[in-house]
Amino acid sequence: MIAVLKPNVSDQQMQTLITWFKGRGLDVHVSKGKFQTILGLIGDTSQVDIDLLNGLEIIESVKRISEPFKNANRKFHPDDTVVDIAGYKIGGGNFQIIAGPCSVESREQITEIAKRTKAAGANLLRGGAFKPRTSPYSFQGLKGEGIEYLEAAKAVAGTPIVTEIMNINHLPMFENVDVIQVGARNMQNFDLLKELGTTHKPILLKRGLANTISELLMSAEYIMAGGNENIILCERGIRTFETSTRNTLDLSAIPVIKELSHLPVIIDPSHATGVARYVKPMALAAVAAGADGLMIEVHNDPKNALSDGAQSVTPDEFDDIAEKVWKIREVIA
Amino acid sequence: MIAVLKPNVSDQQMQTLITWFKGRGLDVHVSKGKFQTILGLIGDTSQVDIDLLNGLEIIESVKRISEPFKNANRKFHPDDTVVDIAGYKIGGGNFQIIAGPCSVESREQITEIAKRTKAAGANLLRGGAFKPRTSPYSFQGLKGEGIEYLEAAKAVAGTPIVTEIMNINHLPMFENVDVIQVGARNMQNFDLLKELGTTHKPILLKRGLANTISELLMSAEYIMAGGNENIILCERGIRTFETSTRNTLDLSAIPVIKELSHLPVIIDPSHATGVARYVKPMALAAVAAGADGLMIEVHNDPKNALSDGAQSVTPDEFDDIAEKVWKIREVIA
Amino acid sequence: MIAVLKPNVSDQQMQTLITWFKGRGLDVHVSKGKFQTILGLIGDTSQVDIDLLNGLEIIESVKRISEPFKNANRKFHPDDTVVDIAGYKIGGGNFQIIAGPCSVESREQITEIAKRTKAAGANLLRGGAFKPRTSPYSFQGLKGEGIEYLEAAKAVAGTPIVTEIMNINHLPMFENVDVIQVGARNMQNFDLLKELGTTHKPILLKRGLANTISELLMSAEYIMAGGNENIILCERGIRTFETSTRNTLDLSAIPVIKELSHLPVIIDPSHATGVARYVKPMALAAVAAGADGLMIEVHNDPKNALSDGAQSVTPDEFDDIAEKVWKIREVIA
Amino acid sequence: MIAVLKPNVSDQQMQTLITWFKGRGLDVHVSKGKFQTILGLIGDTSQVDIDLLNGLEIIESVKRISEPFKNANRKFHPDDTVVDIAGYKIGGGNFQIIAGPCSVESREQITEIAKRTKAAGANLLRGGAFKPRTSPYSFQGLKGEGIEYLEAAKAVAGTPIVTEIMNINHLPMFENVDVIQVGARNMQNFDLLKELGTTHKPILLKRGLANTISELLMSAEYIMAGGNENIILCERGIRTFETSTRNTLDLSAIPVIKELSHLPVIIDPSHATGVARYVKPMALAAVAAGADGLMIEVHNDPKNALSDGAQSVTPDEFDDIAEKVWKIREVIA
Repeated sequence: MIAVLKPNVSDQQMQTLITWFKGRGLDVHVSKGKFQTILGLIGDTSQVDIDLLNGLEIIESVKRISEPFKNANRKFHPDDTVVDIAGYKIGGGNFQIIAGPCSVESREQITEIAKRTKAAGANLLRGGAFKPRTSPYSFQGLKGEGIEYLEAAKAVAGTPIVTEIMNINHLPMFENVDVIQVGARNMQNFDLLKELGTTHKPILLKRGLANTISELLMSAEYIMAGGNENIILCERGIRTFETSTRNTLDLSAIPVIKELSHLPVIIDPSHATGVARYVKPMALAAVAAGADGLMIEVHNDPKNALSDGAQSVTPDEFDDIAEKVWKIREVIA
Repeated sequence: MIAVLKPNVSDQQMQTLITWFKGRGLDVHVSKGKFQTILGLIGDTSQVDIDLLNGLEIIESVKRISEPFKNANRKFHPDDTVVDIAGYKIGGGNFQIIAGPCSVESREQITEIAKRTKAAGANLLRGGAFKPRTSPYSFQGLKGEGIEYLEAAKAVAGTPIVTEIMNINHLPMFENVDVIQVGARNMQNFDLLKELGTTHKPILLKRGLANTISELLMSAEYIMAGGNENIILCERGIRTFETSTRNTLDLSAIPVIKELSHLPVIIDPSHATGVARYVKPMALAAVAAGADGLMIEVHNDPKNALSDGAQSVTPDEFDDIAEKVWKIREVIA
Repeated sequence: MIAVLKPNVSDQQMQTLITWFKGRGLDVHVSKGKFQTILGLIGDTSQVDIDLLNGLEIIESVKRISEPFKNANRKFHPDDTVVDIAGYKIGGGNFQIIAGPCSVESREQITEIAKRTKAAGANLLRGGAFKPRTSPYSFQGLKGEGIEYLEAAKAVAGTPIVTEIMNINHLPMFENVDVIQVGARNMQNFDLLKELGTTHKPILLKRGLANTISELLMSAEYIMAGGNENIILCERGIRTFETSTRNTLDLSAIPVIKELSHLPVIIDPSHATGVARYVKPMALAAVAAGADGLMIEVHNDPKNALSDGAQSVTPDEFDDIAEKVWKIREVIA
Repeated sequence: MIAVLKPNVSDQQMQTLITWFKGRGLDVHVSKGKFQTILGLIGDTSQVDIDLLNGLEIIESVKRISEPFKNANRKFHPDDTVVDIAGYKIGGGNFQIIAGPCSVESREQITEIAKRTKAAGANLLRGGAFKPRTSPYSFQGLKGEGIEYLEAAKAVAGTPIVTEIMNINHLPMFENVDVIQVGARNMQNFDLLKELGTTHKPILLKRGLANTISELLMSAEYIMAGGNENIILCERGIRTFETSTRNTLDLSAIPVIKELSHLPVIIDPSHATGVARYVKPMALAAVAAGADGLMIEVHNDPKNALSDGAQSVTPDEFDDIAEKVWKIREVIA
């Protein structure tokens, strides 16, 4: 961490500040120049509050050099984390597709889709039981019943299940869920993250629409600080001025995250684009960019889907996507 | 609501669609042109899922004409809502300043600040007890103890208190809190909003960093749909590419919200800019733009504040801001 | 185009408006509802000024249904445009890589790179002679001398050349340039676009950092309206709040543009990311998403490059990228 | 400037780098820590290419501490610049309103508006002769004829004139123009800026829709580097995800610019919001925030304006705005 002092700071003020830093366990190196003095703070700065420093009268600016996350940081954990989901592995060279409808609608629907997508190579089944909707008047999901249907589909198709949690108090209902998803809107619901840190279930953590990669890693850090290291990160589009897609899929997040962290990262092209016919090109692009997996919305009857039908591909379209995914995996291997 | 059909839709397909709309209680007017046919859907479209329509094969695009919110909508409720906070009114020409530290640090600190800011005209006291922090290693607030100190300060200074809730399960601790704040990160924590809809306490709802004004009003709608109409909206900066301020304060949200909704809207220049010396110009600008109130961070010793000291003004600086606020209120009256 | 009237508009006002529209050659279909009246305007609305309509007192909102571009519009020109660059084709299934240094530095440098990248399959050579730099104190390019060196490299390596124009008055210097590039900052330099519309040279039009896809197509329309239809569009990153890459590469622009327009679209992963080690994953992703080409910065000695060395790959790294590009092309064929 | 070295850099590599910096006239201070070594570069770093440094293999990151602009920098020029426009002063406590239509339409129109707005206190007259339009099919301005009409209006009303240049070659037509405006789309048209640097006319430089404040100051630096120091900066809205206003007016740019630079800064609420009824609150907010002036679109018949009628206020509305502007000026004096 670097602290740049204001031009007119006295020696005594500087010494007081240095003493204060040393009291926090940091080494301080002083670069005194004609115009400006710079303090290099060396040691564990991850717990230093950068806003607090900026508030000090004699400091012009403070810049962090090392990242404020530790458990999620590749520097301290060079090997890729491999998350094991009932035998299916993701990360460290292992690739998985999570497929399924936006919302669970019925036992038959989810079971049928699970069988079809599993046959095409998607080992994991997704389906929303609790649905975060912008409007209180939109369909909010089948809730507990939806989770039961997911479990029924898993029993038939052999697909571990992934579904979203919106409320800490619902945790008991997620006992048989294999991967608990934290949605984009809850990426900084810190109390929820802390609670999930006390479980041992794999967590699929989606990036918020306006959150930086660094903040995504800090939210992973919240879960990991609680003891749960089974985290899969998911990029699903960020908010920009462009309106031709629902959000802007930030695929460069893949190499950036892989450099900063050891956690696996997957891509959700369905929510990012919001348009079924853009899912295939974006899914293939994600694989080519090195993603550890994909999360794709598949619906047997998208026109009549209860939510987000516009972004769901049909099982036939999914077959085609999956086939090309494996081929691109070979090319970049 | 407008549905534009694809160029090659058959008459039969169109009739099927029209029947489907009518089954949802909507009137349909057809504009058939040489190149395109447009359906005008008239009636209560607030519960129609726009994504679902976009998913239909024969539809090229769907555009909403009327807003999807009702309770928060000025069209259905032309008069300004006035929220009464233990006798202090906000909205409908009534203006209030909420002042206080980012975090409650001690009984003495919060009481001293409450007395000072009340004397300068801030009737309401703010102070964070539960603090949402990006890092799990940063100070997370005094929690229940913080709320007790706020209550103690209120007893001395006579200032109703405003503090943030982060977790539904903490609601019992907020029994003596006068205004419950929903922070920017929880603006779309829908389960929290629903629960707050069942209380009768005034809710201060902050706009999310990447949320549109329309989404802010939909989140207010969540609370109002539950029966609680005491909502104060708060703009506190949105995320853009500009880095010289923490966020970009969107003051045009004031006239936009006043046109769309009857709810009062206040501005938080402290969090928006993140820089104490920009708080005064932005506070005055907010008043000139017609805000119903301000939320300003004041700390008696910003340099040693436990959080966000960089953005807190001193009590003396606050006196100066408040004095000019009243003068600008007179100009625009 | 749809015009929604305000609730309280009189029949006479509406008739005046309808007459006004008809005077502009449009057919008007009226959908009169209990709450709102909607006018569907059918005909050539591309020259109607949407801001002007919004200014009319009796109109609540106006929404465009068809795109305001014609020459660039796939609806009126269903077949892919194929741009021919001295025998090398791009678009309509033809793929090209444009490679070379950010800036031309010397005759030897540019010739050496041209030979290396050509050998790896890049038929076209890029190199900046006129450099748009944020600071007036940064290196601004070798200008005319740079173009001469590019021509010299082309003579040796057989690579048609692509270089950027910044000033209409420089056009005579571009006589032997094969593709004239319009940089992101000049995407809406309309006088420059008009002038380029009068030439017959292929134009590489880069998307501005804050421009929508629709605006990019409107800028292409400026050139095409002048008679020049040889346009290659280029996505090179847009500005968002994310800071871990220089810009955010919007790869979904590829399928969006291909749907809206018949013009070829290429991707520049070097400027988008600003980081050499992210160029490969983003280049492969672009190909998987269906791009018609790539523009990649290659420098024989990136560490000592005069500009943007940080984002240049070495010739060896380029060999590796190109090899995988062809393989992904086969997969998606 | 700070350069952070990679962890495994050898002493010899570091010495080579230090020698290289010293060769560029910089002093280098070394902070060697257990984990990281930091070099503090002291001296004139404004001409150091930050991208070049980032490209060096042994450097982890480079951060600028001082701003890369000099002529526009308040540090080197503490007193406010006062721009004198034919006797009307702006900056250093002097405030001016520039009013007039988006486009000049006729001699009568522009003269009538000039007389009305001058009477209300707007000393300077604006009017577009060359209009940058997204579509090649929209009205592009009266060009030279428009400038003649502006001159005629000035002769009658005594209002110096402000109008936009889009093309270097048009400069001779601007001989009698008092302030030459550079529009948002041309903020980084560097060749245009350089040319304007050789004139002595006041330049009104508008911030680009996606440009940072720092980039705006760098563009001012381009003009100042050529010898012309008569620059007025103008914030006119930036591009964000919010769609209820055309752009998001960034009023915090006012205190930020005033801190970084000595140049006057004015606000254009008309283009920023794109909606006439939001112009008044935003204009008053700008004044309260400390702007040195306003640029407001006024049209005698907004409904029939040839461009941007939607954002123009009437002369009567302008009278009301101007009256309150002077009162707010008194409050903040």
